[in-house]
Amino acid sequence: MAQDVVVGLLGLGTVGSGVIQIINDHQRELQHQVGRPVKIGKVLVRDKTKPRDIAINEDQLTEDAAEILNDPNIDVVIEVMGGVQEAREYILEALGNKKHVVTANKDLMALYGSELLKVAADNSCDLFFEASVAGGIPIIRGLTEGLSSDRITEMMGIVNGTTNYILTKMDQEGRDYDEVLKEAQALGFAESDPTSDVEGLDAARKMAILGTLGFSTDIALEDVIVRGITTVTTEDMEYCRQLGYTLKLIGLAKRKEGRVEVTVQPMLLPDSHPLAAVNDEYNAVYVYGEAIGETMFYGPGAGSLPTATAIVSDLVAVIKNYVLGVNGHSIPTPLFEKQLKSDEEVEAKYFLRLHVKDETGTFKAVTSLFAQEDVSFEKLLQWPLETEEPAAEVVIVTHKTNRAVYERIYNELENMDVVIDVKSSYRVEGGHQ
Amino acid sequence: MAQDVVVGLLGLGTVGSGVIQIINDHQRELQHQVGRPVKIGKVLVRDKTKPRDIAINEDQLTEDAAEILNDPNIDVVIEVMGGVQEAREYILEALGNKKHVVTANKDLMALYGSELLKVAADNSCDLFFEASVAGGIPIIRGLTEGLSSDRITEMMGIVNGTTNYILTKMDQEGRDYDEVLKEAQALGFAESDPTSDVEGLDAARKMAILGTLGFSTDIALEDVIVRGITTVTTEDMEYCRQLGYTLKLIGLAKRKEGRVEVTVQPMLLPDSHPLAAVNDEYNAVYVYGEAIGETMFYGPGAGSLPTATAIVSDLVAVIKNYVLGVNGHSIPTPLFEKQLKSDEEVEAKYFLRLHVKDETGTFKAVTSLFAQEDVSFEKLLQWPLETEEPAAEVVIVTHKTNRAVYERIYNELENMDVVIDVKSSYRVEGGHQ
Repeated sequence: MAQDVVVGLLGLGTVGSGVIQIINDHQRELQHQVGRPVKIGKVLVRDKTKPRDIAINEDQLTEDAAEILNDPNIDVVIEVMGGVQEAREYILEALGNKKHVVTANKDLMALYGSELLKVAADNSCDLFFEASVAGGIPIIRGLTEGLSSDRITEMMGIVNGTTNYILTKMDQEGRDYDEVLKEAQALGFAESDPTSDVEGLDAARKMAILGTLGFSTDIALEDVIVRGITTVTTEDMEYCRQLGYTLKLIGLAKRKEGRVEVTVQPMLLPDSHPLAAVNDEYNAVYVYGEAIGETMFYGPGAGSLPTATAIVSDLVAVIKNYVLGVNGHSIPTPLFEKQLKSDEEVEAKYFLRLHVKDETGTFKAVTSLFAQEDVSFEKLLQWPLETEEPAAEVVIVTHKTNRAVYERIYNELENMDVVIDVKSSYRVEGGHQ
Repeated sequence: MAQDVVVGLLGLGTVGSGVIQIINDHQRELQHQVGRPVKIGKVLVRDKTKPRDIAINEDQLTEDAAEILNDPNIDVVIEVMGGVQEAREYILEALGNKKHVVTANKDLMALYGSELLKVAADNSCDLFFEASVAGGIPIIRGLTEGLSSDRITEMMGIVNGTTNYILTKMDQEGRDYDEVLKEAQALGFAESDPTSDVEGLDAARKMAILGTLGFSTDIALEDVIVRGITTVTTEDMEYCRQLGYTLKLIGLAKRKEGRVEVTVQPMLLPDSHPLAAVNDEYNAVYVYGEAIGETMFYGPGAGSLPTATAIVSDLVAVIKNYVLGVNGHSIPTPLFEKQLKSDEEVEAKYFLRLHVKDETGTFKAVTSLFAQEDVSFEKLLQWPLETEEPAAEVVIVTHKTNRAVYERIYNELENMDVVIDVKSSYRVEGGHQ
């Protein structure tokens, strides 16, 4: 039997424990695939004395990262500690010491992915990060290998399980955002500080990674226009349902003639769109390619064992490369210079819900505004509101327009005398269906 | 610039034309990925003089396979001619001449996959076949790489677009099988001889390939128990809908404690199952792994460009290996000896629709038969039929039982005096939901 492959683990939270569990439980299958035993060497923890449920010897635990990063016996470092600065330093040191790295750290890859991949390539090391996007779903392999020959023009992702859980419960049970968020926190589906999830930042990091890979260009986190779900109401969802749409937090990356747009925001999808049926904490990434047309990858976006599956599958790839002596050659480098779409180039339909004064001339004033900007309506509903002053609710779905025009219209509406309130506004997507 | 990679093409039907189109249109991206130009060398056709819509010089066409198989300039052979014996011979010759092979041929891989993969490995050649299952969907990479660290226990595939199209139209429009089949033939979604599709044979070939890869064992075509869709009626679908199920032609591969079952048959899935929403000619493969839980790959199962995408993505993988000098090392070899489940080990729920005599004792006779075999009912519906003799329709969904018991019950029912006719019988799956 060939020499053992020894793995160092940075972090032993739920995902780290999952990695150890899979390496132990699936040892026979792993050995069959890579031709040698795979062993856990040392594991970095914050507190060695903390009691743990996992089959690990106490002398394998260390509180000193150098014991892993500088150990010549360790071949591969798996980073599951989270955070950005410390993780970045450790990974740079590991790569400098010619250790291959597998990471699940989306924050890190979204911010420093290009730098880390370059350092990995310079050191002839592999740096794999399948687990950083959509947990167990092999979407990064899907983009870089399965669809490598195609030209991808659109990616739409439900890439945050917490927000998808919240929106699903709001939609199916008609319960308010605050109530469902509290329940999700109690069940452990949402963090006590949910900002990163509900404001769309977590999804934005994943979309920066997917945009970079799918479009072969260098999408930075600040290129992603982000809006969260905190203002979504059950009323909005009710109107969506009546109009044949489902409201989801969508990470959208589009490319046309070399110009790209990446955004995360609550959007309306036609009920027939494959993403509309992705519910609860599940994730999915819908990909449109020029040749393949539409395809979708669906599965658990988080969780200890699903995420660990992606990590250990990356580890298998590292070891296969190691056995063949070809590490550091599968680093994707961007082919195209980044060109972001201007507001005038971002085209979409929009859903708008307004409260307006129910008086002569209101309807004309509103429709004139749209006509003046050359935006026509795909759908228009109006009915009276039961308020003291005569008022009406108006729901509009526009035909395609560009973002610059839409924002002018939106601002005008907010300032119009006859408009009491612009209650909500969402982009409508899913046009390939 | 490094030396060109030269590709020989066996066959120039719609898929072959798609391969040429993608290689031409995406040349810049391909070169970026593999570091050298990718060129079409020669193309085997049956008739050189036939007019064609594709950008290919006449002197690149040949009617003699040896001109490709023996041409030392050709590095990779892509087989898109179909059929089994001739394709097998050509591929064996190509591998013998140290040419790497990419094939879309499911019939060939289901029947001779093990042999061809062994010959490829012996010659240090790659043999890739992503396009042989589910067209453009990268399911083979998903199983062998993305989920390589997991232990897969169940795969359910909608892997035949023709039958899924027919069943979707029957279900959504309430039209009969024969009528929809004729329409599908007219539209080019079904062949003039549809046997291979509608009898489930095409799906069985794909499930043999998926079972072999997913369970790391050697599933032969004859191990797959097959039933087609020719007896499915719109009445059955109507009852399914009432009970919350969707009827689909499912390729099912299950493994428990090392013992496997592979079958293709029309099955009932709960409406909430991810496969239940896969409609028209689309394909999807649902995979359940011990660690990852449930995941699904969705996309176009056929078509010129989607299939060509999978082929050219395989070609990219071959060339990357070629550049690194590591061809022939990614051949998956089975780890486990094949152990098929016995009839007693195959457990499932069943849907049964009966016409029975409406007379005293009928209900007791039927229920006694099930009770005697210790099979209980999950759902039971009965209502009168408008026939001359008093009769009733009975729809039963059983709790789990094994196939041996179920077949005894089924045969007994067919012979019972009070049973006029066993109208239909389907397996019910989707229990992980």
